[in-house]
Amino acid sequence: KMPGRVLCAVLFLGALQSLAEASQGHISVVLLGATGDLAKKYLWQGLFQLYIDQVSSGHSFTFHGAALAAVEPGQRLMFDVLKKLSCPPDEAPNRCAVLKDQFLKLSQYHQLRTAENYAALSRDIETLLRQEGLHEAGRIFYFSVPPFAYTDIARHINSSCRPAPGAWLRVVLEKPFGHDLGSAQQLAAELKGFFREEEMYRVDHYLGKQAVAQILPFRDQNRQFLDPIWNRHHVERVEIVLKETVDAKGRTSFYEQYGVIRDVLQNHLTEALLFLIMELPANVSRAEEVLQHKLQSFQSLWGLEKSSAVLGQYQAYASQVQEELQQAQDYVSTTPTFAGVLIHSESLRWEGVPFLLTSGKALDERVGYARVLFKNRAYCTQREALRDAGHSQCKAKQIIFYFGHGALNTPAVLVSRNLFRPVMPKDSWKEAAAWPDLHIFGQPLSDFYVYSPVKERDAYSVLISNIYHGRKDFFITTENLLASWGFWTPLLDSISHQPPRLYPGGVENQHLLDFEIVSGGLAFTLAEPAELLNPSRQMPSDYRVVESKFRQSPLVSAWSEDLISQLASDMEEAAVRSVAHSGQFHLALSGGSSPVVLFQQLARHHYAFPWRHTHIWLVDERCVPLTDSESNFFSLHRHLLQSVRVPYFNIHPMPVHLNRRLCVEEDGGTELYARDITALVANASFDLVLLGVGTDGHTASLFPRSEHGLEGAPTVVLTESPFKPHQRMSLSLPLINRARQVFVLVLGKGKHDITTLLSRVGHEPRKWPISGVSPSSGQLVWYVDYEALLG
Amino acid sequence: KMPGRVLCAVLFLGALQSLAEASQGHISVVLLGATGDLAKKYLWQGLFQLYIDQVSSGHSFTFHGAALAAVEPGQRLMFDVLKKLSCPPDEAPNRCAVLKDQFLKLSQYHQLRTAENYAALSRDIETLLRQEGLHEAGRIFYFSVPPFAYTDIARHINSSCRPAPGAWLRVVLEKPFGHDLGSAQQLAAELKGFFREEEMYRVDHYLGKQAVAQILPFRDQNRQFLDPIWNRHHVERVEIVLKETVDAKGRTSFYEQYGVIRDVLQNHLTEALLFLIMELPANVSRAEEVLQHKLQSFQSLWGLEKSSAVLGQYQAYASQVQEELQQAQDYVSTTPTFAGVLIHSESLRWEGVPFLLTSGKALDERVGYARVLFKNRAYCTQREALRDAGHSQCKAKQIIFYFGHGALNTPAVLVSRNLFRPVMPKDSWKEAAAWPDLHIFGQPLSDFYVYSPVKERDAYSVLISNIYHGRKDFFITTENLLASWGFWTPLLDSISHQPPRLYPGGVENQHLLDFEIVSGGLAFTLAEPAELLNPSRQMPSDYRVVESKFRQSPLVSAWSEDLISQLASDMEEAAVRSVAHSGQFHLALSGGSSPVVLFQQLARHHYAFPWRHTHIWLVDERCVPLTDSESNFFSLHRHLLQSVRVPYFNIHPMPVHLNRRLCVEEDGGTELYARDITALVANASFDLVLLGVGTDGHTASLFPRSEHGLEGAPTVVLTESPFKPHQRMSLSLPLINRARQVFVLVLGKGKHDITTLLSRVGHEPRKWPISGVSPSSGQLVWYVDYEALLG
Repeated sequence: KMPGRVLCAVLFLGALQSLAEASQGHISVVLLGATGDLAKKYLWQGLFQLYIDQVSSGHSFTFHGAALAAVEPGQRLMFDVLKKLSCPPDEAPNRCAVLKDQFLKLSQYHQLRTAENYAALSRDIETLLRQEGLHEAGRIFYFSVPPFAYTDIARHINSSCRPAPGAWLRVVLEKPFGHDLGSAQQLAAELKGFFREEEMYRVDHYLGKQAVAQILPFRDQNRQFLDPIWNRHHVERVEIVLKETVDAKGRTSFYEQYGVIRDVLQNHLTEALLFLIMELPANVSRAEEVLQHKLQSFQSLWGLEKSSAVLGQYQAYASQVQEELQQAQDYVSTTPTFAGVLIHSESLRWEGVPFLLTSGKALDERVGYARVLFKNRAYCTQREALRDAGHSQCKAKQIIFYFGHGALNTPAVLVSRNLFRPVMPKDSWKEAAAWPDLHIFGQPLSDFYVYSPVKERDAYSVLISNIYHGRKDFFITTENLLASWGFWTPLLDSISHQPPRLYPGGVENQHLLDFEIVSGGLAFTLAEPAELLNPSRQMPSDYRVVESKFRQSPLVSAWSEDLISQLASDMEEAAVRSVAHSGQFHLALSGGSSPVVLFQQLARHHYAFPWRHTHIWLVDERCVPLTDSESNFFSLHRHLLQSVRVPYFNIHPMPVHLNRRLCVEEDGGTELYARDITALVANASFDLVLLGVGTDGHTASLFPRSEHGLEGAPTVVLTESPFKPHQRMSLSLPLINRARQVFVLVLGKGKHDITTLLSRVGHEPRKWPISGVSPSSGQLVWYVDYEALLG
Repeated sequence: KMPGRVLCAVLFLGALQSLAEASQGHISVVLLGATGDLAKKYLWQGLFQLYIDQVSSGHSFTFHGAALAAVEPGQRLMFDVLKKLSCPPDEAPNRCAVLKDQFLKLSQYHQLRTAENYAALSRDIETLLRQEGLHEAGRIFYFSVPPFAYTDIARHINSSCRPAPGAWLRVVLEKPFGHDLGSAQQLAAELKGFFREEEMYRVDHYLGKQAVAQILPFRDQNRQFLDPIWNRHHVERVEIVLKETVDAKGRTSFYEQYGVIRDVLQNHLTEALLFLIMELPANVSRAEEVLQHKLQSFQSLWGLEKSSAVLGQYQAYASQVQEELQQAQDYVSTTPTFAGVLIHSESLRWEGVPFLLTSGKALDERVGYARVLFKNRAYCTQREALRDAGHSQCKAKQIIFYFGHGALNTPAVLVSRNLFRPVMPKDSWKEAAAWPDLHIFGQPLSDFYVYSPVKERDAYSVLISNIYHGRKDFFITTENLLASWGFWTPLLDSISHQPPRLYPGGVENQHLLDFEIVSGGLAFTLAEPAELLNPSRQMPSDYRVVESKFRQSPLVSAWSEDLISQLASDMEEAAVRSVAHSGQFHLALSGGSSPVVLFQQLARHHYAFPWRHTHIWLVDERCVPLTDSESNFFSLHRHLLQSVRVPYFNIHPMPVHLNRRLCVEEDGGTELYARDITALVANASFDLVLLGVGTDGHTASLFPRSEHGLEGAPTVVLTESPFKPHQRMSLSLPLINRARQVFVLVLGKGKHDITTLLSRVGHEPRKWPISGVSPSSGQLVWYVDYEALLG
C-alpha cells in the first residue's frame, strides 16, 4: 500500500517537511485524464511546481492520476510522463532532484470508471489520513476529460468521494462549457446538482497568463494616472488579439463544432476585454466584487448582430475536415477559423469606443495582446524633425498587455513614455533591459516603458497555485459563464449559415483579412477576390431583399434582419426627403415587440437621420402610466429616444394619464391628442405611420369589431383590447389613412397564417382592421419577412 | 496730355489690340497708395500681369497710381517701381518687353488729396474716353491705404469719381476691416453710405492663394469620394496652420494693436476653415450660394471662450514694442504673437470634431496648410512589416491643402493614397513628379497623391484677375466679415488681459508651444517653465477664486467666467455624490439670463455629469407656452437639455399650459406640480436648488410683498411679477428651504447695489424675498462675481 511509503519519504526529507509542520492538513489532488494531452503538456508540470512551492507550507500532499485505463498500463503511461517533468530554472538542481523523486513517490495511478472505483479512492485517502494521523484539509479534482464525461464523474465524486466534513472540495473544470447559452445552462444545471458554486473552479487558462492577470492590478495600482483618461474621451479603441500560425489540422473533429468564436473569443478574449472595461472595484482581489462589476459590464454591451463580425476560413480547412471527418468532397463547412468582432458598450465611460476582438488560425504570426490606444488630443507646434521624441505628446499613446510570443516573445506590459511611468509590483515585474532595436505597434520599443515578469510562469502553474490558494477570482463562475454565452449566442446563431471568406493562410493572406468599421458594423476592406472563391461553396442567396406586391401594394421581403435594415433605410430616406421639403418629419410609431429591433437599428446605424427635425407621435398606447414597462412609449423611449436627440418639444406621448387616472373619457385625452395633431401636423397628415399586424388582424389598437376608430372621423379613440391591459388609446383608421406613407411591418412564423389570409381577403376592416389601411392619397408599403410570408 | 499717347501706343501695337477689339469698353484702374509697401511688392506686378493677360480681351486700360505726395516726387517714386516690374517666366521676353513699355505708357501718377483732385481725375478719364471715342466699361479703385483714410477716400470717389451710368465701379479694400465687431460694423456702415455691396471687393489675400482657392472646387469635383467620409464619423480633426519664422520687428505699431488672432486667425484661417466645413452648395462658383452656406456655417459654431485658446508671445516682443513705440521699461504687452484656438461646430456633420487653428511669429518654420485627418477605422490583420504600404488601410489618411513654403515650397494638394485618387482640373493642377525623399505629416511623400499648380501664381495676381472678372466669391462680403467678427470678438474680449506664455523663438521653442485638448478647451502641454517667466510681467491674480462668507453663508467669488466654472464643478460634484448615495439627483433650476452660460458650461465641459440619473425641475416659470422663447423651460432646453441625455421621464417642466390656457387656477397646475414633486422627490427635499437674485431682491418668481409663496406651506404657487409677462408659477420659499443645497448665483455690475444691500439686511422676505432663503437643514452657498460684489 502506498501511504506508508509516502509518509516515510516525507519523514526522510525532514529538512523540508515534518509531521508537525504538516499541521495545516493533508491535500489530495486527483487529476482525471492523467494521461491526456493537456495533462502531459501542462498539468503534471503544474502540480509538480505546486509541490515545489508548497512543500514547506505546512500541508502534506498526495497526487492521484486517474483515467479509464486499467491500473497496469495506466500506471506505466502516467509514470512515463512524470519521469520527464523538468525542474524550473530558478530551482537548485539538487533540491529539485530530491523533490522530484519525492513527488513521484507521492503520486499514484487509479482506474476511475465505476462508482466502486471512486469509493475505493476515497477509502484509500481516508486510510492514509488515519494511518498517518493527519487531518484532511481538502481534495482537488481536476477534470481534464471531454465534456460528455463531466456529469458521470461529477455524480461519482459527489456521492462517493467527498472529503470528511470540515475539509473542502474543489473541482476544476476545463472548457468547453457548452457551445451556446442553452447547452451551457444545461451543463451548469447538471453540475449544480452535484457541487456548490464555491466548489467549482472553471478554468480559462488566459486568466493564468501573467499579462492578463496583471490587467486589474495594473488598473488598480495606476488609478492616479488612469482615472482621468480611462474613458471614451481619451480612448480611441481597444484591440484584443490572439493570432496563431498553426491551423486546426488533426483537431477538426473538435474544431468543426466550435470554430474560432467559441474556441477563443467567447472565453479568452472576452475575459481580457472585461478586465479592461469593467468599472474598477474598490478591492480588485475580492472575487465577489470583481464578479459583480464584470456582470454589470456584460449588461452594458450592445447586442451583437450579424454585421458585428467578419469571418474567415483558411482554404485548406475544408479538405482537412473532409479527410478527418470522412465527409464527401462537396461537404461545405461554414465554421470560421478567423473572426473579427466589433463590440460596443453603452456605459457612460465607453459609449462610442470600438472594442475589436480578433483571432484566427493560419495567420502570419503567433501573438496575443490587449491594446488600449488613446486619442491624439495634442497639436505639436514644432515640426516633426525638431521634436524631442521623449516628450512629444503627438506620438501615439498606448498601453499594451502583451500575452506572449510575437516579436517580444515574453509576457509584457508596455506603456507609452508620453503617458506616464506606471507603478508596477517590484517583486513580480521588472523593467526590461535594453531590447534589440524593435518596432512594435508602429513605434520603436524605446517609446515605451516595458515591463516583463521577474519569473516567467506557465498559465497552468499559476492557475494550479490559485486553486490551492482558493483564489476564485482567477476562475469563471457560473454567472460569468452564462453572461458570456448570453452575449455571444445571438451572434453565433445569426452567422451559423454565413459563408466565411476563404484565405490562403500565412503571409499569403496579405490584406485579405483586414477589416474596418462601417456604419456601426465590420466589413472586410478588400472586396472578395473572385479567384479565391471556390465555386462549390456558393450559398443560396438567402439574404437578398425581394420586392414585389402584396394586396396591390409594394411588398419588401427578406430574412428579418435584412428586412429591418431595409425598412430603417427607407425610413431615413423618407425623413430626409420630408425635412428637405417641409423642414420637419412627423413620424407615428407603433408599440409591440417587432419594432424594437427596428428602433435599435435606427439608433445605432442611421447617423444621418434628421432627429432634430423629427416629431415622434404614438400610433397607439396602453392605458398604463408612461413609466410603466408595459407602456408603448416606455419601450420607444428605452430603445430609441434615449439614444437619439429628438427635441423635448417634438416628443408626443399619448395622454393616457391625466388627473392621476388612466384613460377616463371625461379627462379628454383623445381630444387633447387630436388637437395637438391638428395644431402641429399639416392637414393632420403624418409623413409616415409605422404599423404592425396582430395574429387576429388588428393594427394600431384597433381590434376586430371595435366600436370606435374603424370608420368615421379622422380622430383619436379609446378602444378595448381582448388582451391585457384591455384599455387602449389609438389613432383611428381614417386618421391613419390620411398619412403620406404607411409602412406595415410583419415579422415571424407566428404571423404566417394572418399573412396568408390577408393575401386573399378584400377590404373588411370590421373583421380584420389591418385590411382597412388604405391611405387615401398616400403610399402603403408592406415589409414582411420570409418567415411570415413563407411560414 | 496722356490720353493721346496712350491710344497711339495701343494703335501702334495693332497686332495685340485694335480699337475694334476694344469694343468691350475702357477700364480705368486707380491704385490708391501707389508707392506703398504692398503696391511695390505685389499690386503693380499684379496689375501688369492683368494687362499681359487681358490686353487682347477687347478691353482697353489705363492705370492711375495715386497718393498724397505731389505729382513730381510721386511720379518719380512710382515709375521707379514700375521700371522694376518683372516678366512672368512663361511669357516670351520680346512680347513682354513691348507690353511692359506699353504698360508704363498707360500708367500715370495722380496726387489725390482734395475733392478737386478726385474731380480732376474723373475729368481726365472722361476726356480720354471722349477723345478716343471709347465707351466706359468701369473703374477699379484699389485702396492700399491705412484704414483711417478709408472714409475720406470713399466719400470723394462716391461724390466726384463715379463712372458714367452703365459702367461699373469696383472698390477694392485691404484689411484691417476693424478690430472687433463694433468697429467693423461702424466701418461697414460708413462704407455703405458711399458704395453698394456689389461694388465692394474686400481682399483676404488667402482667397487668392491657389491651394485655398482650390478647396471648394476640390470638394465639388470629388463629391463621390468625399460624400461618405466628410463628416464626424470619419474625420478625426481639422488643422489650419500658418507658421512664420519672422517676428513683428519694425511693425509693432500695427501689431501691438492687432495681435495674431486679428492678423491671421479672424480672416485667413477662418476663411480656409469655412471652405472646408461649410455645406457644399450645388454650384460652388455662385458667390451668393457660397456666402449663404458660409453664414450658416458660422451660425453652427460654438461660441469661443477664454479656455478655447492658448496664447504666446515671443520673448523679444516686449523690448521691440518698448523701443519702437517708445514705451517705458515696465510697459507690459499682452498682445499674442502665437495662438492656438479650438473651434467646434454643433452641426450634425461636424459635432465633436475639433478644428484647431494655429498661427504664430518667430516659430521654427514658415509654412501654411489646412489638413483634414481621418480616423483610423481599420484593423490590419497582417503584421506591420508584412503590409503592402500602398494598400494598407491602417496608415494615416489625410487630405492637405498646402498653402506654400515649408518642405514642399509650392502650393499643393495632397491626398493619402489609401483614400482615393482625386479628380483635379488638368489645366490648372498637375500630378507632381518624383519628389526628393521627403517625409511630411508623419508619412513619406510617396504615401500621397500630390498635385501642384501648372502655373504658380501670386495671390494678388489671382485676386486682381478676379476683380477684373467680377468674381465676388473670392472676396469678403460685409455679412461674411461681420459674422467672422461676431464669432471672434467674445474671445478677443475675454483674453484682452490674459498674459500670454513667453517663448524664446525659433527652434528654441521646443515643446513650449505644444498644446492639447483638455475638457473642451485648450491648454499648453508643458507647465509654464519658471525660468522663462519674466517676473515684471506678473499680472494681478485676477482669476483666483476667493472663498469667504456672505450673510453668514459660504461665499465663492471670482470673475464671472471662473465663477461659472467653479459653480458647474460644484454642481457636478453634488450630482455625483447624490447619485452615489441615492441613485438619483433632483435639480431645480431657475430661468433668466445668468444661468445660460452655466448651462452651456455644463453641457460642454462636464462629461461626467450623471445626466441619466438627474431629474430636472423648474424653480419658476413664466405663464407662456413652453415653446415660447420667453419660457424659462425653452431656454433651459435650448442651452442645456438638447445637448445632454436626460431621460424624457426625468424632465419636469412646470405645467403652466393646461386645457389650452395659461396658469388658470382652476386647472390646478400648481397642485399637479406639487404632487409630482411629492411623488418623486424624497421628503420634497430637492438635492440642489439653483437661484438667482433680481435687482429688487426677488428670487425664483417670488417678488417683494408677494401674496403667495413667501411663507406658509412648502408648495407651488402662482404669483405676479412687476415685469412682463406678469403671471408666474414658482416654488414657494418654504419648499425651496427644504432643499439639501441651495446655490445662489449673482452676476454683473447691475447686481452690485442689491448685493451690497443684502450684505447688511437680515431676514426680511417680504421686502427682499431672497433674504428669506435659509434652508432648514441644508446648505446655502453664494456665488457672486467680482462685478456684483465690488461694483
